[in-house]
Amino acid sequence: MKSIGVGLIGSGFMGKCHAIAWSGVKPVFGDVPAPRLVQLADVNADLARQKAEEFGFSSSTADWRDLLRNDEIDIISITSPNEFHAEMAIAAMEAGKHVWCEKPMAPSEADAELMLEAARKSGRVALLGYNYIQNPAIRFIRKFLEDGAIGTPYQTRIEMDEDFMADPDTPFFWKHARTSGYGALDDFAVHPLSLIRTLFGGISEVFCAMGKPYADRRTGDGSRRAVETYDFATMLMRLENGMQGTIEVNRSAWGRKGRIFLQIFGSKGMIVYDQERMNEVEVYQATGPANEQGFKKVLMSPHHPPYEKFVPAPGHQLGFNDLKIIECRELLKLVNGEPANAITFEDGLQIEKTIHAAARAFEAGHWKKVD
Amino acid sequence: MKSIGVGLIGSGFMGKCHAIAWSGVKPVFGDVPAPRLVQLADVNADLARQKAEEFGFSSSTADWRDLLRNDEIDIISITSPNEFHAEMAIAAMEAGKHVWCEKPMAPSEADAELMLEAARKSGRVALLGYNYIQNPAIRFIRKFLEDGAIGTPYQTRIEMDEDFMADPDTPFFWKHARTSGYGALDDFAVHPLSLIRTLFGGISEVFCAMGKPYADRRTGDGSRRAVETYDFATMLMRLENGMQGTIEVNRSAWGRKGRIFLQIFGSKGMIVYDQERMNEVEVYQATGPANEQGFKKVLMSPHHPPYEKFVPAPGHQLGFNDLKIIECRELLKLVNGEPANAITFEDGLQIEKTIHAAARAFEAGHWKKVD
Amino acid sequence: MKSIGVGLIGSGFMGKCHAIAWSGVKPVFGDVPAPRLVQLADVNADLARQKAEEFGFSSSTADWRDLLRNDEIDIISITSPNEFHAEMAIAAMEAGKHVWCEKPMAPSEADAELMLEAARKSGRVALLGYNYIQNPAIRFIRKFLEDGAIGTPYQTRIEMDEDFMADPDTPFFWKHARTSGYGALDDFAVHPLSLIRTLFGGISEVFCAMGKPYADRRTGDGSRRAVETYDFATMLMRLENGMQGTIEVNRSAWGRKGRIFLQIFGSKGMIVYDQERMNEVEVYQATGPANEQGFKKVLMSPHHPPYEKFVPAPGHQLGFNDLKIIECRELLKLVNGEPANAITFEDGLQIEKTIHAAARAFEAGHWKKVD
Amino acid sequence: MKSIGVGLIGSGFMGKCHAIAWSGVKPVFGDVPAPRLVQLADVNADLARQKAEEFGFSSSTADWRDLLRNDEIDIISITSPNEFHAEMAIAAMEAGKHVWCEKPMAPSEADAELMLEAARKSGRVALLGYNYIQNPAIRFIRKFLEDGAIGTPYQTRIEMDEDFMADPDTPFFWKHARTSGYGALDDFAVHPLSLIRTLFGGISEVFCAMGKPYADRRTGDGSRRAVETYDFATMLMRLENGMQGTIEVNRSAWGRKGRIFLQIFGSKGMIVYDQERMNEVEVYQATGPANEQGFKKVLMSPHHPPYEKFVPAPGHQLGFNDLKIIECRELLKLVNGEPANAITFEDGLQIEKTIHAAARAFEAGHWKKVD
Repeated sequence: MKSIGVGLIGSGFMGKCHAIAWSGVKPVFGDVPAPRLVQLADVNADLARQKAEEFGFSSSTADWRDLLRNDEIDIISITSPNEFHAEMAIAAMEAGKHVWCEKPMAPSEADAELMLEAARKSGRVALLGYNYIQNPAIRFIRKFLEDGAIGTPYQTRIEMDEDFMADPDTPFFWKHARTSGYGALDDFAVHPLSLIRTLFGGISEVFCAMGKPYADRRTGDGSRRAVETYDFATMLMRLENGMQGTIEVNRSAWGRKGRIFLQIFGSKGMIVYDQERMNEVEVYQATGPANEQGFKKVLMSPHHPPYEKFVPAPGHQLGFNDLKIIECRELLKLVNGEPANAITFEDGLQIEKTIHAAARAFEAGHWKKVD
Repeated sequence: MKSIGVGLIGSGFMGKCHAIAWSGVKPVFGDVPAPRLVQLADVNADLARQKAEEFGFSSSTADWRDLLRNDEIDIISITSPNEFHAEMAIAAMEAGKHVWCEKPMAPSEADAELMLEAARKSGRVALLGYNYIQNPAIRFIRKFLEDGAIGTPYQTRIEMDEDFMADPDTPFFWKHARTSGYGALDDFAVHPLSLIRTLFGGISEVFCAMGKPYADRRTGDGSRRAVETYDFATMLMRLENGMQGTIEVNRSAWGRKGRIFLQIFGSKGMIVYDQERMNEVEVYQATGPANEQGFKKVLMSPHHPPYEKFVPAPGHQLGFNDLKIIECRELLKLVNGEPANAITFEDGLQIEKTIHAAARAFEAGHWKKVD
Repeated sequence: MKSIGVGLIGSGFMGKCHAIAWSGVKPVFGDVPAPRLVQLADVNADLARQKAEEFGFSSSTADWRDLLRNDEIDIISITSPNEFHAEMAIAAMEAGKHVWCEKPMAPSEADAELMLEAARKSGRVALLGYNYIQNPAIRFIRKFLEDGAIGTPYQTRIEMDEDFMADPDTPFFWKHARTSGYGALDDFAVHPLSLIRTLFGGISEVFCAMGKPYADRRTGDGSRRAVETYDFATMLMRLENGMQGTIEVNRSAWGRKGRIFLQIFGSKGMIVYDQERMNEVEVYQATGPANEQGFKKVLMSPHHPPYEKFVPAPGHQLGFNDLKIIECRELLKLVNGEPANAITFEDGLQIEKTIHAAARAFEAGHWKKVD
Repeated sequence: MKSIGVGLIGSGFMGKCHAIAWSGVKPVFGDVPAPRLVQLADVNADLARQKAEEFGFSSSTADWRDLLRNDEIDIISITSPNEFHAEMAIAAMEAGKHVWCEKPMAPSEADAELMLEAARKSGRVALLGYNYIQNPAIRFIRKFLEDGAIGTPYQTRIEMDEDFMADPDTPFFWKHARTSGYGALDDFAVHPLSLIRTLFGGISEVFCAMGKPYADRRTGDGSRRAVETYDFATMLMRLENGMQGTIEVNRSAWGRKGRIFLQIFGSKGMIVYDQERMNEVEVYQATGPANEQGFKKVLMSPHHPPYEKFVPAPGHQLGFNDLKIIECRELLKLVNGEPANAITFEDGLQIEKTIHAAARAFEAGHWKKVD
């Protein structure tokens, strides 16, 4: 494949992130087909035109279905609001396009299942944008685990905390309504679950507690409206491999900006990682003289692929957007029929089933199986 | 009160810790009665004699009941194995002695209740050795919370991890037998619970998961024996004040040496503390310009009582033993009829009831009330 | 200006870094002319061809002078070895091209002066690749200083340490020969000096000590050759604004990968920054209650321009390559006649004069003026 | 020796610190003679009486010479202001007492020499209170160096910063007058020099820069007086073993409370230590797979003598006062004729000679030999 045609739906946070990835993947990795940025779709035609110019797309449209009809386009990046993912992804695959869809798949389990079905039927690549698994640090952790460097892992704890909903004076908005989902559970926990899936595999049973920091919020008319979603949640897990785990998520955690704090407990050591310092991994190995043991802070370097594609010097650090460039490179592997490090629709559906099982466990007050 | 007579039962880890506290409390605090170190009891008469000389006690005995009969003794430090706490503490209080008893109260809830009853009947001081609450850092956190500095706290997470049972090759010993208790749940979680009690008050409901990193261990005769206790546990909590909380404990956590990691989430900020860096508190307050907000690392100083009693210069740090000196000072306040920062038998019983409720929740797989 | 033609000389570490910047600057910043990647020059014609394809340049050449003759090219990125900077930059400017030249300017002070002269004469933009000053964190520090947030700064200490020359078993190579320069002094200290220039302005006097960790190294023929350069150096400075400063540099510092540790001491507070955690700034302000003061760790966020151009969420982190994208954006400002945050040839010459004065101070054993 | 009689001169910060050490050394170490606290001297007779009661001394006096005449006293702790050290220490040794004198020895080099002479003539133990070298962490570092764990050390940098003189609004007091010494140079740098002496031995040559953050300060009568001492200083060193070094000291460094930041660069690794986290040592060793190398944070534990004398569990932490208890134990070794880890008057004089040479180098603007 000499080049590959790209369409993009959406031009917000994630739309721009995809655009940057599409611009960077070739100069960074070199050995990939050159992406041709064909068309950008945004409901706002003016915005679509402006962003197409900025992001380097040749044309723009207010109708995303135009991308389906465009023969120049091989892959469609879907970065629209979650509620549109199912319709767009399914239509794209039916039109023969590969799909790079932002997470989560869809608000409803049924829609997610339809998406997977469409992917299977079409035979097209269907990748979800779980970019945190692309960090060289996470790959290093996986390799480190596979090598048995901390023996047999038996427990993991992951916390994901941010503070964009922490201010009690922020008025009620759509994320506070039940229609947006459960709250932090589906908004955040999917990320830790993508890490667990990448590192350890499937989850068989879950328990869940959730909470609301603020019972109600003011509305535009000055009245107060009850908050319907849960800004924090704790999920307990039994994994298929016998491990146990805890996920804590909180989107009202003042001071936390992008914390995903991961601890893995093993029979011979321990691993610690924090997304807020995404270029570092801490490892403890119970080897060597007792008075010299300690947590070792490993800075990411060219020895941690694919870091070396970005910078040939150690400790110089990748950023958030670089993870999307790596994800894009994995996508291109899949398109080329190669194995890749990826959360496909198949994996994604398992993640969403876990979320829904947790919500049922919360209601029931006891453990629920993930089916 | 010009001086106070002290008896000590036990001369191991905690016995020595009490002895150091008794030696230090007067030079450090000044305004307390001078302790007279009267008698030390240890089942091993030779050891008792040697340790009495080292710790500065005037006499020794192999029979702890000698202390009850000694009129010179006002307070008895009980640092024997947990299974003897009830018998000794009750006898001491019946003999009119004040009691400074190491935690936890007793393996059985019934015994703990008898201890509290004896304390009430005798009118003597009955203090438990929950030294972590004595840290100036914890007092600062409590004051900070009371001042509303992080608004209304709504969630807390506490992790307590050490690695003294992490080695799978360590042979089976008494802590692996069911007779020693549940495992990390009662061995460790009592410490986080003492912090919660000090900072937030009572707990109404709990859920619990537990796990065993290693199913069995070798015994002296080369065979393998099933491990009966759980080295790690997760406890979910609903507090009486409406907060929710999680406690994670693990005594097989390679690399963790004395970690008690505390996070408190509030409506206006956040507090973070780690016992492995016991002279630091991190606070985030959602005030001031957005581009200048961040977690502030406050080093303990003479502005954080009673740090100033130890060192008049900031950032010079207290150590583990210093916490026991502070606890001793609080004990002397209680003896003198003053209010004190303390976990009394009354508080201690609530902590143990919480543990037992958690164990029942684990068995049942759903929430249990703490009665 | 609707678009701008770009030529690139060199395709190694910095060549690729420039290429990534040229690809990213438009999607990231939006409001800049779209760069047209016209031609890439590398002495190795095959490599030039391959890299042109990977980096997205339309054509390639083995003769860098082809770029001078190419009317499509407005700006030339110069990333060749230092010894060629003067010749190439001067020729480029004489040919009417703007120049984006990697640091340092040239091994000899005389050449650097010629470069500045050519820049002045041509009226072209002449920017040096001191990318560390482009970090939003450094801009935040500068603004913070300007606002008087730490009062009057009176001292600064900067350490820059890496370990790529730390291994005593690495054979003698060109960086060990005197012809390459003084050693860490010119190789590294220029970076801290670029920060000092950006934050505080000029330097009037310097003192210097230097050292060699290893006296000699093995050569290809098995013999040993004396090392002629100094892998570590300490420079003391008196600044024009009355401040004093210390720069420590070491390119044999095992474990340091990209450390640039900056401390600024002021009359009302302090600032600390470490390039190995380039998305964080620590600030101490002597305000508020004494028991709540501490170093505050500020995570870079959309409140720290131009971070928001990369990610709209705080704490998500930029990487090393992103700094070059920002530098590229500043270059485009200069080309457009706008003020910019930049180390021009004028600034660069002062940096190099400081280095040479330090080398003379080292020889003399006493302070030397920077003329 | 069954017990040892102790006299104490002074009852301030260091007087109390000695008293706590004398109370703690026996219960902590066990195998030492029991100290008898005989007499406390303080110019203020009432204060002497009160502090004797608090610290557990049997008697008190306003005349320190009473201690010389007291046959019960074997060792005298001297914690009076520096200007009295020489007179008191010399008199004490002439009276046959061992001396435990706080650092530094004396403001003048001549007096320090007389003190050493008196120590030699008397044959008594003469120990200086350089407590930071007693930290188990520093012993671990020394052992680690001796074992060659980081190869051959070739450079060290030590920073010592506090902020007790940082406030520009503090009125002029005695530490701002030239009569108090040079400033941070003699007030602080002696501590880093004690570490260097313990870890690496003697210093042959020094260079020095000094500075004043604030030119003048207000006085009691509202006028302003020029500050005569230098609150910050940088000392460059050439060590007798061929190493080079830098010491930075600042007693006006806002936010630093007890920072002594030590970096040691070796041919096979690196060591980092910060007194503000005195229970941790960071080590980097250039061994093992490249992708697993990193700085390892070693928490002090019973494997780091004499930590185990204080707590049998790792990571539980010693405090500032515990270092003085260790120092007291080393003193008792010396009294008993055993080798000890100590800064004697002999070592102390070398430290002070280094300080005075640095002051001369500052005046001269070039390197000065330490004679």
